[in-house]
Amino acid sequence: MAKLSNMENKMDHFLSTTDWSPEEIESLLQTAAAIKAGKNTANLAGKVMGMVFLNPSLRTRTSFEAGMYQLGGHAINLSVGAGMWKLEAKEGVVMDGEAAEHVKEAVPVLSRYVDVLGVRAFAEGFDWTEDSKDPVLSSFAKYSEVPVINMESAIWHPCQALADGLTWNEAHLKKNDKIVLTWAYHPRALPMAVPNSVLVMAAARGLDVTVLRPNEFALDGEVMEKAASIAKATGGSVDETDNLEALRGAKIVYAKSWGSLKAYGNKEGEAALRAQYPHWQVTEEWMQQTADAKFMHCLPVRRNVVVSDGVLDSNASIVQDQAENRLHAQKALLLKLLAQK
Amino acid sequence: MAKLSNMENKMDHFLSTTDWSPEEIESLLQTAAAIKAGKNTANLAGKVMGMVFLNPSLRTRTSFEAGMYQLGGHAINLSVGAGMWKLEAKEGVVMDGEAAEHVKEAVPVLSRYVDVLGVRAFAEGFDWTEDSKDPVLSSFAKYSEVPVINMESAIWHPCQALADGLTWNEAHLKKNDKIVLTWAYHPRALPMAVPNSVLVMAAARGLDVTVLRPNEFALDGEVMEKAASIAKATGGSVDETDNLEALRGAKIVYAKSWGSLKAYGNKEGEAALRAQYPHWQVTEEWMQQTADAKFMHCLPVRRNVVVSDGVLDSNASIVQDQAENRLHAQKALLLKLLAQK
Amino acid sequence: MAKLSNMENKMDHFLSTTDWSPEEIESLLQTAAAIKAGKNTANLAGKVMGMVFLNPSLRTRTSFEAGMYQLGGHAINLSVGAGMWKLEAKEGVVMDGEAAEHVKEAVPVLSRYVDVLGVRAFAEGFDWTEDSKDPVLSSFAKYSEVPVINMESAIWHPCQALADGLTWNEAHLKKNDKIVLTWAYHPRALPMAVPNSVLVMAAARGLDVTVLRPNEFALDGEVMEKAASIAKATGGSVDETDNLEALRGAKIVYAKSWGSLKAYGNKEGEAALRAQYPHWQVTEEWMQQTADAKFMHCLPVRRNVVVSDGVLDSNASIVQDQAENRLHAQKALLLKLLAQK
Repeated sequence: MAKLSNMENKMDHFLSTTDWSPEEIESLLQTAAAIKAGKNTANLAGKVMGMVFLNPSLRTRTSFEAGMYQLGGHAINLSVGAGMWKLEAKEGVVMDGEAAEHVKEAVPVLSRYVDVLGVRAFAEGFDWTEDSKDPVLSSFAKYSEVPVINMESAIWHPCQALADGLTWNEAHLKKNDKIVLTWAYHPRALPMAVPNSVLVMAAARGLDVTVLRPNEFALDGEVMEKAASIAKATGGSVDETDNLEALRGAKIVYAKSWGSLKAYGNKEGEAALRAQYPHWQVTEEWMQQTADAKFMHCLPVRRNVVVSDGVLDSNASIVQDQAENRLHAQKALLLKLLAQK
Repeated sequence: MAKLSNMENKMDHFLSTTDWSPEEIESLLQTAAAIKAGKNTANLAGKVMGMVFLNPSLRTRTSFEAGMYQLGGHAINLSVGAGMWKLEAKEGVVMDGEAAEHVKEAVPVLSRYVDVLGVRAFAEGFDWTEDSKDPVLSSFAKYSEVPVINMESAIWHPCQALADGLTWNEAHLKKNDKIVLTWAYHPRALPMAVPNSVLVMAAARGLDVTVLRPNEFALDGEVMEKAASIAKATGGSVDETDNLEALRGAKIVYAKSWGSLKAYGNKEGEAALRAQYPHWQVTEEWMQQTADAKFMHCLPVRRNVVVSDGVLDSNASIVQDQAENRLHAQKALLLKLLAQK
Repeated sequence: MAKLSNMENKMDHFLSTTDWSPEEIESLLQTAAAIKAGKNTANLAGKVMGMVFLNPSLRTRTSFEAGMYQLGGHAINLSVGAGMWKLEAKEGVVMDGEAAEHVKEAVPVLSRYVDVLGVRAFAEGFDWTEDSKDPVLSSFAKYSEVPVINMESAIWHPCQALADGLTWNEAHLKKNDKIVLTWAYHPRALPMAVPNSVLVMAAARGLDVTVLRPNEFALDGEVMEKAASIAKATGGSVDETDNLEALRGAKIVYAKSWGSLKAYGNKEGEAALRAQYPHWQVTEEWMQQTADAKFMHCLPVRRNVVVSDGVLDSNASIVQDQAENRLHAQKALLLKLLAQK
């Protein structure tokens, strides 16, 4: 799994949950639960987080900024492009184009002002080989002098996965309970960072996870293998199918749309693949096949496209708790990373 | 007054001053004056305000952010469209268009991260029947789990009205003193939230208020009736005219431009109506007809279009004090709303 | 030097280091060094800084926001144009164009909400006579009721100069040590605020400064004279040349690109002038001619255009320390300005 391991990860970065053992994950989720219950009063007084957003954000930005303040610290919101120039990430480039600054300057300099650096940089969507190297996140990890938090990169969204882990704990999921991670239709080809991270997290928690998707929408083979190897160690399992029968027995239906790797970067070709499956929407009918499953989604979600109003407005939906858990999980993460310093 | 009362208002939202009794308003203005005088040291340590701006802001954003910090809390600035995706507010929609998230998710989720939620959403300016339902503010009020503050909606700007009430107190206005709320020329059709709110606030304070405007620029009839019914209770009065003689005896001239309801959503037709009145500008001549009136405007104001340099730069102008009072009034409001929690 | 002195500077603004004596500068640099060493624990609890950016920023915004928080205060980030309307700065204008608010309202009002006001407003680049009056900064200085900090204006970037002074102290520069401030090629005509400020700061520190540039890129004559008169008082010296021999003996090579005053506002003509000098790039060869000089640049810098990877990645480069010193110098500045209040 060469490409995904290209990233340099010093001990104190948080780039993917796959860098952590199942025990480290469990410990963090315990801290997050304690914070949510008001039982952890550790603080980060005097600490500053820099949040660099190359893509939009609602939950991530708000929960980190609120969380840092609630811990006594402060978060600075930096949106590249909005009030900040473009950044170059490639090595050896003659910078006579649009980018006014290289990450080799911007990242170490930012890390002189702050104590922890979050970065959001989605996949560019042209070339999967390139995107799967996670170039922006990798360069932040390489050049930062302070811990880096992945606030969603080309291939991983580990903060979402931590929140999901906490949500599964709250839903009393046990080892080998079944979770179906299902693809859904969407008008645009979306990134795979969330399904990738949910998959490896489910494996790390010892769940039996089935990826339900049309065959053209299989996740990256290396990510599937990584999840399988994690599941082998935890006693969970990983499976994939295009058969809706997979919903039977599910305790969790986790919906998410993503683009096809079969036509990656080919906008029209990819759209044609997706156009075959407008009926892949989580509806009441789908939910009825499950074992009284809870419905999850990382949000934002398109109503009556990805999931019906009926499901989202039912008691089965725990998307709001799931989103709230971003706050608690990230506060636990911040305490862990900054306590190391 | 069906349309304006469509909004669900739980006790702890602040959507319009019309939800408050004159006594509640007076009490808040007393608190605001005490804060301004440095005599109120209550604080909001640990509290977070989320400010959702669907439209630009200078005073509102800065005064809320400074105010929350000065009270020991923290305000998060969220601008929809700038670093945040578009929000859908209609029910039952198949979300295959531009909006990536529905308020039914965004609002409750935000309210899990913060303790109070401010929202600014101007009228869209196409259909007054639709705008007068205040769809965005209404949905925030409906779906938020924490108090919502109206930071200017399609029909109301109650934070401005609170600041104005404080400014009138400082100017020693007494019951039945005369205030002229005058329309002025402006190159664009502006919203009516400010004149609406100033009008009902003046009525609630027992002032004699005259709306001075060309006939094509009459305010909404239901708002006028609402103001009249409030004035009846407080002993004030509400009048409207296109006769500049109304300036005689005024203690306050409050200028503001707004678009015509006669051609609402019809850009060219509305512009033609406005084009008749480029001379509706508050000048020294206008002010000379008053009883040594003070000049007020909510800002931003276009110099030598809405009001002459001569008036704005004279001692009669109290627009800066008025703007400063946003800070003090809003701090009183925040203390009131968050103390209820 | 009429045009540069048009600005009204009340005692407590910080518009240019030329308003300060060499002793005042030295005192501030001592404070900055103490802050960096953790030996100055003065704080600004309860104080708010408003940062008004008419142009993008990374270092300035992040270092001021982090610095205010670290001192116990709070900084508010206001970007004109992004979530804020355009501001008019000319007197007597009929405001029927794009700008919705005049600085005569915006600035005093902002100064009612905050304790110190930073403003960034680059040269417009059309007319040097107009730009050299620094119209936006001047009007902030004129209308603000609180101290104004120049966060880079049309002609000065004094916060950068303070950071550079601290960096020179750390590099143990002594009186009459040689610094070469060199022009470099760049695809766009950049402002002159940084070279102007570095020049007068070097003079104020008693250094021997040579401005190395093609003849078409001479700095403004009045700025050169100002620097020479400062140098005369401190025992330093100021020189300019297009001869690369000037690199000999340099202890510091400070690179920066800027546009030509010979074709100011004439985009094509200026580009033609610049196009003659693509080889003006600081390379290892250039550095070898110096007296083991350190390399400085205010950042952002275009790699392999302004300076080669080889220089920037060598031990000679102190650009990151230089950038870090923005934080410490600005904290010293904030303490100085707000302690006066």
